[in-house]
Amino acid sequence: MTHQEGAAGPISGRPPVSAAQAAEQVALACRIIAEFGHEDLTLGHASVRGPDGRTIYIKRKGKALREVLPQDVIAISSHEEEGYLTPGAHLETVMHTQAYLARPDVGAVIHTHPLHSIALGATNHPLALLSHDALLFPDGVPVFDGTAGLVTSPAHARAVAQVLGAGRAVLLRNHGILVVGEDIRWAVLAAITLERAARLQFVAMTLGALVPIPHEVAGELSAAKYQAEFTDEYWMAWCRMVDGAGRGACRD
Amino acid sequence: MTHQEGAAGPISGRPPVSAAQAAEQVALACRIIAEFGHEDLTLGHASVRGPDGRTIYIKRKGKALREVLPQDVIAISSHEEEGYLTPGAHLETVMHTQAYLARPDVGAVIHTHPLHSIALGATNHPLALLSHDALLFPDGVPVFDGTAGLVTSPAHARAVAQVLGAGRAVLLRNHGILVVGEDIRWAVLAAITLERAARLQFVAMTLGALVPIPHEVAGELSAAKYQAEFTDEYWMAWCRMVDGAGRGACRD
Amino acid sequence: MTHQEGAAGPISGRPPVSAAQAAEQVALACRIIAEFGHEDLTLGHASVRGPDGRTIYIKRKGKALREVLPQDVIAISSHEEEGYLTPGAHLETVMHTQAYLARPDVGAVIHTHPLHSIALGATNHPLALLSHDALLFPDGVPVFDGTAGLVTSPAHARAVAQVLGAGRAVLLRNHGILVVGEDIRWAVLAAITLERAARLQFVAMTLGALVPIPHEVAGELSAAKYQAEFTDEYWMAWCRMVDGAGRGACRD
Amino acid sequence: MTHQEGAAGPISGRPPVSAAQAAEQVALACRIIAEFGHEDLTLGHASVRGPDGRTIYIKRKGKALREVLPQDVIAISSHEEEGYLTPGAHLETVMHTQAYLARPDVGAVIHTHPLHSIALGATNHPLALLSHDALLFPDGVPVFDGTAGLVTSPAHARAVAQVLGAGRAVLLRNHGILVVGEDIRWAVLAAITLERAARLQFVAMTLGALVPIPHEVAGELSAAKYQAEFTDEYWMAWCRMVDGAGRGACRD
Repeated sequence: MTHQEGAAGPISGRPPVSAAQAAEQVALACRIIAEFGHEDLTLGHASVRGPDGRTIYIKRKGKALREVLPQDVIAISSHEEEGYLTPGAHLETVMHTQAYLARPDVGAVIHTHPLHSIALGATNHPLALLSHDALLFPDGVPVFDGTAGLVTSPAHARAVAQVLGAGRAVLLRNHGILVVGEDIRWAVLAAITLERAARLQFVAMTLGALVPIPHEVAGELSAAKYQAEFTDEYWMAWCRMVDGAGRGACRD
Repeated sequence: MTHQEGAAGPISGRPPVSAAQAAEQVALACRIIAEFGHEDLTLGHASVRGPDGRTIYIKRKGKALREVLPQDVIAISSHEEEGYLTPGAHLETVMHTQAYLARPDVGAVIHTHPLHSIALGATNHPLALLSHDALLFPDGVPVFDGTAGLVTSPAHARAVAQVLGAGRAVLLRNHGILVVGEDIRWAVLAAITLERAARLQFVAMTLGALVPIPHEVAGELSAAKYQAEFTDEYWMAWCRMVDGAGRGACRD
Repeated sequence: MTHQEGAAGPISGRPPVSAAQAAEQVALACRIIAEFGHEDLTLGHASVRGPDGRTIYIKRKGKALREVLPQDVIAISSHEEEGYLTPGAHLETVMHTQAYLARPDVGAVIHTHPLHSIALGATNHPLALLSHDALLFPDGVPVFDGTAGLVTSPAHARAVAQVLGAGRAVLLRNHGILVVGEDIRWAVLAAITLERAARLQFVAMTLGALVPIPHEVAGELSAAKYQAEFTDEYWMAWCRMVDGAGRGACRD
Repeated sequence: MTHQEGAAGPISGRPPVSAAQAAEQVALACRIIAEFGHEDLTLGHASVRGPDGRTIYIKRKGKALREVLPQDVIAISSHEEEGYLTPGAHLETVMHTQAYLARPDVGAVIHTHPLHSIALGATNHPLALLSHDALLFPDGVPVFDGTAGLVTSPAHARAVAQVLGAGRAVLLRNHGILVVGEDIRWAVLAAITLERAARLQFVAMTLGALVPIPHEVAGELSAAKYQAEFTDEYWMAWCRMVDGAGRGACRD
């Protein structure tokens, strides 16, 4: 039974309490980020760590982000050596499993190909602290440049996780982004906000010399701006956006 | 009873004559500016000064701009010390109350996070008088840089109002915009027009050396261009846009 | 009876044979250019010269371009001194009447505020011959800078017509565009194509040093590219776009 | 009988086995690329080589890309001298026939006027290897500059095919693009991906100094990224996009 077909209430964006809830979170996340320009062919994927801490629920191959329903989500093990090779899994599923292994605090992972973020990662400029968007990443966003190609091996995926470090996001040079969150709310927020920050920087670069937020206040401002209870609000508004009568439409 | 559910005629954009009308104006304004790219998560808010001159009707927390209905509007007092702390109020409600206190001529206030305006405010360049859009701000748009963070204290909010001065708009550096108007028509016009002017400047900066409108004629041209009766027309057209069969859709 | 309410066939874009057909052409033209980004508040207007050669059918004040129906079109005389002051007429109607007086070959006129064209006109750079779009204007597009304000007097309007000369378009510096055509097909084509050419130039300016079409071949290439029979095709496709089940929607 | 009106299953994007299937592929391809910004008036066309190897199925004149149905597709011979002059054929049909003659490996051809690609081709800069998009063209995209005008003669069309060489795409300077594919899947992929790569380069040029993928690894990365089985997935997702309840709409 999908959310669309009868769930009594809204789906929480907090860590899932069941496999079914995890699958619904992944499907919603995919449809949400599609609305914000993250769709590229049938590529990109979101995942959520299940209640057992080791099962990962992740979008399977074959659907575009805007189309994903709970039945398009598969379960794989992050602790089995070849879990990422589960039939139907995206080639780059290993980036998710390695991120979960490296970061026990992480409950959700997203990899996509958003245009402005890729453009930024294809230059020698770092993300600048120009707006509240960039404040979600007060210590900046590192760039992984171990390969410009698909990240399909555990070795490359571990290297991505290493560059990510304790942060929320990493730019995969010439390729895309990987973002993580405490749960699906935070991962979606990171994906959308990173792309918006990159787009805003693109516009600002043309308008004049940048006047960024001073680094010394970024941490404090970030903590005030990004609080868990706010993220609940955002999640519910996103769900209403993609899950209304006009599912998949930007307006309800 | 909302406008959608039975109001006999269109809602005026002139100063409201009742609490119900004020709430409808706020809801319509939120939905209108959402159509023009001002939506950011569930953030941004519009408010209207009520008929008693001291009650402020303002969007509450929890809804995205495109979703706001009259029942999502709360009443707070601008003259009580802690009015802005009313449960459900956005953290930055205090920017509205301080603007109303500082400017008795103001009947509506909007704070949002539009991308091109934020980008402009994150550079060292002022808004240029490139088009009729910029003419709504013939004396330019000042920049508040007292903090890059949320404006949640009366002290910061008073400082924003001070930078605003007698004008229609202020850029909050690295954050967003605050615009004011004689009534909701003018505030919506200022919000939409400032963002359009910033976007136009972004395009022009790439196309060549700017040839702005001479400052010495700006005041006169502005007065001819922006007249109250025109603003009535704009308001009615915006209302038809968001309030038709396809409420929330860009087309009716 | 409007086209929507029962016309047996499609509306031709050739010079109108009746007042009713002229009004339908104007309404369709307004809705078409709205789809291509020309809408700005309730501003901008299209007009058509009627079968008598001296009556002008023009959008009246009060509607946004996307909303215009035949009943929103008024008839004025281009040969009466004060025809442009007809009640309900846009303030800048005089630009239309003066263009018709100066150019007996012109059957339709459009004035709008498209963003990229205004941005181009607010710089010191001319339109470059970068693509087939610009080829519609093989001799370039002149800039009127007699005033940055509204063009409401016959004197200013005559000056605009003088700068237009024998061409299809003029940039009104810091304000908008005026385009003309043999009939409504050509005027709509000029409006849409000028804005697309300006947008393309904006993109190209960032991508590298421009390699324009040589001026000496522009005239010949333009004549081959822009033929009356092609324009019939375009007009019919635009009408299908705005006049289908989803009138006003971009897709049918 | 069109696909919409009763085909039992999805239309494959592999080389067509019948004339009917070829026509459906062409119609779908036109509607798909329209969704990705390739529409320009009623211009642009897709074609597919039929099962006999010498009949070409190509969009006829008169419809915009978003409107094309199988009945808007005509059959012409690529081996008859004047096949491209078939009544109803676009003037530039000869570019298709010459590409098929020069490239026996090619099963589908698309010519369109996408804005960012044209802008790139109107500058002195080549396509840079900035992202996986550009990897579809690991050896770069050559520029045809034999004429800036319409390509309507066999001589010009042969010259375009010569510049195309063994590649997937050619920029027609000041005009548009020509892309080819083993079948319609690959041709659509090339059209969409070239335009996305050009747009991404536009954004990156503003953001900083480019850090492209090293040419020496481009071939290998390209082969891993672009595999035939993936292209099947993309084709099916595109077909669902344009062929659902909301045919022609971006969302289903």
